[in-house]
Amino acid sequence: MDLRQLQKEVARWIERTPEGYWPPLANLARLVEETGELARALNIGYGSKTLKPGEPPPCLAEEMGDLLFTLLVLANQTGVDLEQALIATLDRYERRRQSGGGSRNTETPRFLP
Amino acid sequence: MDLRQLQKEVARWIERTPEGYWPPLANLARLVEETGELARALNIGYGSKTLKPGEPPPCLAEEMGDLLFTLLVLANQTGVDLEQALIATLDRYERRRQSGGGSRNTETPRFLP
Amino acid sequence: MDLRQLQKEVARWIERTPEGYWPPLANLARLVEETGELARALNIGYGSKTLKPGEPPPCLAEEMGDLLFTLLVLANQTGVDLEQALIATLDRYERRRQSGGGSRNTETPRFLP
Amino acid sequence: MDLRQLQKEVARWIERTPEGYWPPLANLARLVEETGELARALNIGYGSKTLKPGEPPPCLAEEMGDLLFTLLVLANQTGVDLEQALIATLDRYERRRQSGGGSRNTETPRFLP
Repeated sequence: MDLRQLQKEVARWIERTPEGYWPPLANLARLVEETGELARALNIGYGSKTLKPGEPPPCLAEEMGDLLFTLLVLANQTGVDLEQALIATLDRYERRRQSGGGSRNTETPRFLP
Repeated sequence: MDLRQLQKEVARWIERTPEGYWPPLANLARLVEETGELARALNIGYGSKTLKPGEPPPCLAEEMGDLLFTLLVLANQTGVDLEQALIATLDRYERRRQSGGGSRNTETPRFLP
Repeated sequence: MDLRQLQKEVARWIERTPEGYWPPLANLARLVEETGELARALNIGYGSKTLKPGEPPPCLAEEMGDLLFTLLVLANQTGVDLEQALIATLDRYERRRQSGGGSRNTETPRFLP
Repeated sequence: MDLRQLQKEVARWIERTPEGYWPPLANLARLVEETGELARALNIGYGSKTLKPGEPPPCLAEEMGDLLFTLLVLANQTGVDLEQALIATLDRYERRRQSGGGSRNTETPRFLP
């Protein structure tokens, strides 16, 4: 399904709620909450966190879907076309890759002393 | 453009890099870095942060595109179809809305004493 | 109580656990999880989020204590003295304030076009 | 130095600025920005991120000091005593550890199917 269409779907969903859009910084707070839940799920699946006895295992797809939803809400309320934004990012990364940026420079210390 | 196709585009981009995929927790660290840049941009545009003299204004679309890119990388490496995940989120939110969850309960204190 | 002593207290606590220190990026994932919980609590107390019926109100102090705990774990495992780091931050901010940096520059557009 | 005193020091610093306290969600946005910078530094020092040629290596202590500063600002404006909050966290974690919570349960799948 078209990302632009999905973005419109999310707009329609918000417009059907009685409260409409939250202010951008409240939506950011929500994005951070969802990012935290994704971090927890990744730490359980690929890191060091363990579940407490009886705790249900997290669902990565659910956390990622929730995060993308909130990102699309923020895009809608700030007038960003997320599809175009992603394509611009891919272009920028490709130009950076071709110009050799980001390659490991083993001469450089990893931290300031 | 199809979100599923965009997700494949991101996979192809990563596969063309010499180092391939970072471990999931390193990609999470990158997602957090991008979230921080989006937070800064939103705080400048809709919050309290001001630019230092001469500092270029941030570009919201760029920060959102970068965040979505990293989310797609994480989805690829953990086997998540982000389009399907978003549609499941929309379904879940719709069911929750219809059952009346999440409505403001003015009887409940906002913080524990 | 001395921040340096509290930092040692956290080190002693970790050393008493059977698994010891998690890798830094797993502790970062945990820091992000705690930040997400604080974001949720602030969004409920000062933003737009509402509690579902029966959901207990969050406790800000608890979320902040958990976040500081994980920050101290990260400081311990990377050899940072957090008290000294905070004092250096206060000095740096004070110098920046006195040199006039960060003041609102109304001439600058808030976003790139 | 006493954490409670450091918290007062941060309050005095904010009170000397012309704009005073930002709203809590704007301070949260700043906390997220600082968390992102710490994530970047940890990803460079202990993860997969590399510096671009000529890019200065990050300073972990600086990022941690900045993060603690913003956490103390949030604590001040919401009436939280961070020292007491940390001690309560240590108590809670100790009780949880003694009751055996959080130990790895190898019977539980790491993700929902």
